Amino acid sequence: MSSQFQPTREDRFTFGLWTVGWQARDPFGDATRPPLDPVESVHRLAELGAYGVTFHDDDLLAVEPDRDRAIASFRKALDETGLVVPMATTNLFTHPVFKDGAFTSNDRDIRRYAIRKVMRNLDLAAELGAKTYVFWGGREGAESDAAKDVRAALDRFREAIDTLASYVTERGYGIRFALEPKPNEPRGDILLPTVGHALAFIGSLEHADMVGLNPEVGHEQMAGLNFVHAIGQALWHGKLFHIDLNGQHGNKYDQDLVFGHGDLKSAFFLVDLLENGGYDGPRHFDYKPTRTEDISGVWASAEANMRTYLILRERARAFRADPEVQEALAASRVDELSVPTLEPGESFDSLRNEEFDLDAAAARGYHYERLDQLAVEHLLGAR
Amino acid sequence: MSSQFQPTREDRFTFGLWTVGWQARDPFGDATRPPLDPVESVHRLAELGAYGVTFHDDDLLAVEPDRDRAIASFRKALDETGLVVPMATTNLFTHPVFKDGAFTSNDRDIRRYAIRKVMRNLDLAAELGAKTYVFWGGREGAESDAAKDVRAALDRFREAIDTLASYVTERGYGIRFALEPKPNEPRGDILLPTVGHALAFIGSLEHADMVGLNPEVGHEQMAGLNFVHAIGQALWHGKLFHIDLNGQHGNKYDQDLVFGHGDLKSAFFLVDLLENGGYDGPRHFDYKPTRTEDISGVWASAEANMRTYLILRERARAFRADPEVQEALAASRVDELSVPTLEPGESFDSLRNEEFDLDAAAARGYHYERLDQLAVEHLLGAR
Amino acid sequence: MSSQFQPTREDRFTFGLWTVGWQARDPFGDATRPPLDPVESVHRLAELGAYGVTFHDDDLLAVEPDRDRAIASFRKALDETGLVVPMATTNLFTHPVFKDGAFTSNDRDIRRYAIRKVMRNLDLAAELGAKTYVFWGGREGAESDAAKDVRAALDRFREAIDTLASYVTERGYGIRFALEPKPNEPRGDILLPTVGHALAFIGSLEHADMVGLNPEVGHEQMAGLNFVHAIGQALWHGKLFHIDLNGQHGNKYDQDLVFGHGDLKSAFFLVDLLENGGYDGPRHFDYKPTRTEDISGVWASAEANMRTYLILRERARAFRADPEVQEALAASRVDELSVPTLEPGESFDSLRNEEFDLDAAAARGYHYERLDQLAVEHLLGAR
Amino acid sequence: MSSQFQPTREDRFTFGLWTVGWQARDPFGDATRPPLDPVESVHRLAELGAYGVTFHDDDLLAVEPDRDRAIASFRKALDETGLVVPMATTNLFTHPVFKDGAFTSNDRDIRRYAIRKVMRNLDLAAELGAKTYVFWGGREGAESDAAKDVRAALDRFREAIDTLASYVTERGYGIRFALEPKPNEPRGDILLPTVGHALAFIGSLEHADMVGLNPEVGHEQMAGLNFVHAIGQALWHGKLFHIDLNGQHGNKYDQDLVFGHGDLKSAFFLVDLLENGGYDGPRHFDYKPTRTEDISGVWASAEANMRTYLILRERARAFRADPEVQEALAASRVDELSVPTLEPGESFDSLRNEEFDLDAAAARGYHYERLDQLAVEHLLGAR
Repeated sequence: MSSQFQPTREDRFTFGLWTVGWQARDPFGDATRPPLDPVESVHRLAELGAYGVTFHDDDLLAVEPDRDRAIASFRKALDETGLVVPMATTNLFTHPVFKDGAFTSNDRDIRRYAIRKVMRNLDLAAELGAKTYVFWGGREGAESDAAKDVRAALDRFREAIDTLASYVTERGYGIRFALEPKPNEPRGDILLPTVGHALAFIGSLEHADMVGLNPEVGHEQMAGLNFVHAIGQALWHGKLFHIDLNGQHGNKYDQDLVFGHGDLKSAFFLVDLLENGGYDGPRHFDYKPTRTEDISGVWASAEANMRTYLILRERARAFRADPEVQEALAASRVDELSVPTLEPGESFDSLRNEEFDLDAAAARGYHYERLDQLAVEHLLGAR
Repeated sequence: MSSQFQPTREDRFTFGLWTVGWQARDPFGDATRPPLDPVESVHRLAELGAYGVTFHDDDLLAVEPDRDRAIASFRKALDETGLVVPMATTNLFTHPVFKDGAFTSNDRDIRRYAIRKVMRNLDLAAELGAKTYVFWGGREGAESDAAKDVRAALDRFREAIDTLASYVTERGYGIRFALEPKPNEPRGDILLPTVGHALAFIGSLEHADMVGLNPEVGHEQMAGLNFVHAIGQALWHGKLFHIDLNGQHGNKYDQDLVFGHGDLKSAFFLVDLLENGGYDGPRHFDYKPTRTEDISGVWASAEANMRTYLILRERARAFRADPEVQEALAASRVDELSVPTLEPGESFDSLRNEEFDLDAAAARGYHYERLDQLAVEHLLGAR
Repeated sequence: MSSQFQPTREDRFTFGLWTVGWQARDPFGDATRPPLDPVESVHRLAELGAYGVTFHDDDLLAVEPDRDRAIASFRKALDETGLVVPMATTNLFTHPVFKDGAFTSNDRDIRRYAIRKVMRNLDLAAELGAKTYVFWGGREGAESDAAKDVRAALDRFREAIDTLASYVTERGYGIRFALEPKPNEPRGDILLPTVGHALAFIGSLEHADMVGLNPEVGHEQMAGLNFVHAIGQALWHGKLFHIDLNGQHGNKYDQDLVFGHGDLKSAFFLVDLLENGGYDGPRHFDYKPTRTEDISGVWASAEANMRTYLILRERARAFRADPEVQEALAASRVDELSVPTLEPGESFDSLRNEEFDLDAAAARGYHYERLDQLAVEHLLGAR
Repeated sequence: MSSQFQPTREDRFTFGLWTVGWQARDPFGDATRPPLDPVESVHRLAELGAYGVTFHDDDLLAVEPDRDRAIASFRKALDETGLVVPMATTNLFTHPVFKDGAFTSNDRDIRRYAIRKVMRNLDLAAELGAKTYVFWGGREGAESDAAKDVRAALDRFREAIDTLASYVTERGYGIRFALEPKPNEPRGDILLPTVGHALAFIGSLEHADMVGLNPEVGHEQMAGLNFVHAIGQALWHGKLFHIDLNGQHGNKYDQDLVFGHGDLKSAFFLVDLLENGGYDGPRHFDYKPTRTEDISGVWASAEANMRTYLILRERARAFRADPEVQEALAASRVDELSVPTLEPGESFDSLRNEEFDLDAAAARGYHYERLDQLAVEHLLGAR
């Protein structure tokens, strides 16, 4: 493949250990790949040009059951490769004990266990230099509306996050939290199902300032929502702390495809927004190499994520730099939306008494079809 | 039909004039019904047992183009019937001038016109005694991600709501605002697409205290989201100011079916939550009589909304009163979720050093299948 | 629970061994329940009032790895309980060898192995008296459109089904085949994704007469399609050979809920159609007890499927027997659709020259809202 | 824009008059554009490089109510421009008389009127040289399962199509029929909702040979189905008679976006299949210029459809010609699927007794991630 789109550390690409390490067990099938040593993952990802890796506490134990030894080996691999660990998270979903949730299980002792499990891994995350800690509440939900008092559940969710935020603060870890919403799967309905619900929840926290979001492409798209809009709103609230890049084909099971292998046009506008919208965190891939792949396919897929991002970045840059695009944006009055609707200090009377030619205004065209086509042609490398 | 489920004013059922008055024009077909005089709607709804009506400014002009005369006739009908007007709203979507949005149109003069249009109808709403004013931003959105700067759009949306909140405050109208989210249709993607996104947006407002939500059953269900969960979260934030009841069959165009004619099990749990969850506003139906109906079908459908609500209310009461249900809820530890996870003032060490039998906890069953079946059998009137 | 809705053998309820025996492993979690001995399943299902059980070849080996011994124990349990085996099927999806499909794997030796695996279990199915053999092609699909030549895949699918039909015919097994469509999961897109695609495919088979369908409630609903319409079309083609009853909440992962725990209104009309539409096969439940359940919850959920069906059957009978419903059906001219549109032997000229009052015809109402409400009220047991 | 992708007549691009002529009335808004004279459409489309136009009977009357004069003007425009009319269809959905369906209305006189309306336009279609006649049954459906006997409806649908096929045969028009499936909108559920259901229905017709399909990109995607798979199956049955190209963003209302402005990756594989799969009919665009556009945007959007197709055709050619792609296809054994699974005349015993290394076969990788990435990079013009 062409050398133009080779990733480097400066691109800040990161991968979860659980991505390349996924053994490809699905609801209807057994694993198709053997466990992968995190040490190997670190070395291979470094060779491919990644900047860092991220992990769940349990990921480190994939082949070495002794935690201390597993951590030591992992640290050594990081040192050898120079890869960093910008983010870590907790597995609060695989073990049967979490079958009714972790922070919002109806069972109080399980909720307490879940908080302990996070604390232990927060200590490790801090040691490894992580600056962001992700919370995906995949089991916080229900299949029946009779089973869960949603308001009580949100009370407990808030209690858990505030407790852990206090813990991090007390220890001086300098870590921020990032909540990852998802609408459903593995629960019938998951609490905080979208970027919006999670943003609203964060606003209710005692430690709201240190909590933001880790939105995932496929999770919003599973609800048919526009991911670029979601990221726009998250940035507007100052809450885009981290991001999970992958691919999805709409309203179905969570596919975790390679970034760009789902809705490619949305991926283009996403890269455009990330590059120009003020996000400076890692570009984190949270995907699953398809179950048909052997280990060579795993590494091919890891590389594919990065190459696609780089190509889209190049396409977005060309799009923004094209004088015809700039002219088209002006013709669509896109910038006019940044002008306040009222004059500074304008009175209600002034606003109400304004003359306005309704029919003339209604007749104006917005020329969005032309603009969208310019984007598509840039995306296709055809300009 | 049985007389047991006859609505009365005390049930506080309200209807939009635009519901029974819908002429049944759809994207592929012309109107199948003539315009309906709001005066007739008021009288017929009163006869059927409704408590009130709601309106868009333009609804009043369905048959009488002179605004003053239309308002006078409408007032007279209200006086004759005793119906109240608890809520009003603005049509910011039908006229071509709003084709790119109202508060977030790229064109500033259109944004100003939109605010003026709301102001004028706020004056009327206040005169008619409305306590809630709804904002459905159906045209605030885009079909192409190139067409709209989402962050600028949210700035303008916030500016508009804050401006209008100031207006209402200055005039002393005592009106609260309720935002109505919707994911898409008529725009490809609408801003503030779900209850969650709108809640988060409200948190950013200068006048956040006087702004809440008007969630609609079908709008959340168009994104495959659990409406009962959405209402639970809205109540948790103290933001359920009003509600739109109707029916929908999942991820497709906005159907606006009669309440209960879509997902009936969800409707049961919704009524259960509304009746027991602290909501005391009107039960407002925002539906469309199907296009196949003549005027007799319109009134039959209006009645159907209320009857279904009353039957579900009866079923929900019986469900909560059933000792076997209470025993099943206890067996599922539903109440245990209301117990804080930590002791008051508990230390991190205390939490971390607790003994815990992981395997025993993991082996516990939650008995949700039994609980769900009890709900289904109550819903079916089979217990 | 009330004794009115106790299942009996005459109700012909059947369960897959894999339903109650599901260990509740999901894409994000380990098993929450131990393996269940098929022998125990047979005895417990018999006690609950079931008529029969069905199985994949691999299901029999859940606790006894020796196939002969496993079969002997299973037979003994059948003999002791009187349960029958009306249907069997093959597991062509769990083993990693099937990761790219069975009959349509790109690898020819795997396709050959798949056919052999079916043959072996067909022999057993015949011995156990099964009359229907189901084919769910869960792995026949792709994640990338580059990976699979759909036309070649359909050639191979046809070759496999025709080969196996010849085998059954040659052996004189008297077994019919039933294809089970599904749109996606575990593959990104599955071949023959809906009832319609499978019906069309069947029409192309050499042995079309002995091949029909085994539609599953949730599979069509995962594509947002109307399952009652699907069953209507399957019956119209004479191809409803078997049916999988369960529950689903729209366009998301395959939930396999208890029958009626998803779209309850659709379940009502489905039972109405099955009872009155000429289907006389088993009422087969293909569901999964939710992962939160221990074994007591498994049996509670099994019972729930049957009770819900019986309640719905009672509601459908009352609906059809209600004189007001009959009057409403007549008012909606539902029966008029069974009258041929042309007279026998009518000429084109006769048809073309007919007088017709377009406006009068357009003004007629169909009164479907009333009819639908009557159905809802019967469903709710409120009439 | 670059001159490389200028359409010519040889590309065989066609447009419905109702596409550029859409006045942009939607369920929540009035028309934003004036009526467009079909004569102007013909001239402008010819200038843009189109090959032909298609029409509903009513489309011709957009500005000239006299049918004979309208037809004469239209013919003249065709003669002047050289545009052809390869397809025509009937409007059986706009008028209120069709609110419960046309061929499957519960009212027999309406069904007869619908057939007459088609006959009249078939005469005109034949005169204008159309070779394909499309049937979109947009109103053939229901909102309530009580309202429509699906089996009776399919009887009437079959009667109508067979009657009209006889009519065409008797008149010697040499026209073939193409059914256009759609899952929902404007009806809650439409009969023959997908390509599969329509294919199965066609198999039941007396005149099956002269009836095929006119699948539409967005219609299958509204059900989350893979359109490339649908076209693959339609070709496999020999039934791809015509095609409607446009864009859609998954499970929502029918968007009718410009081709490629929805799922761009699927559009790439679609063009690849159309160009290489044996389809030789027109490339027909059935889209709607978005409501925000004035007439200049209408023509820009018309051009965009053709340019996108031509770019994708170029990308697909390069993909197939790339030696690395050919090597990757071989590594994925894509061609091996075209090899029959059994030897000619092979016995069951031969198949059953074959040796097979299950574990070795299960360990093979399919390398689809690499192949998919090659496709994405070609699509992006990055190779």
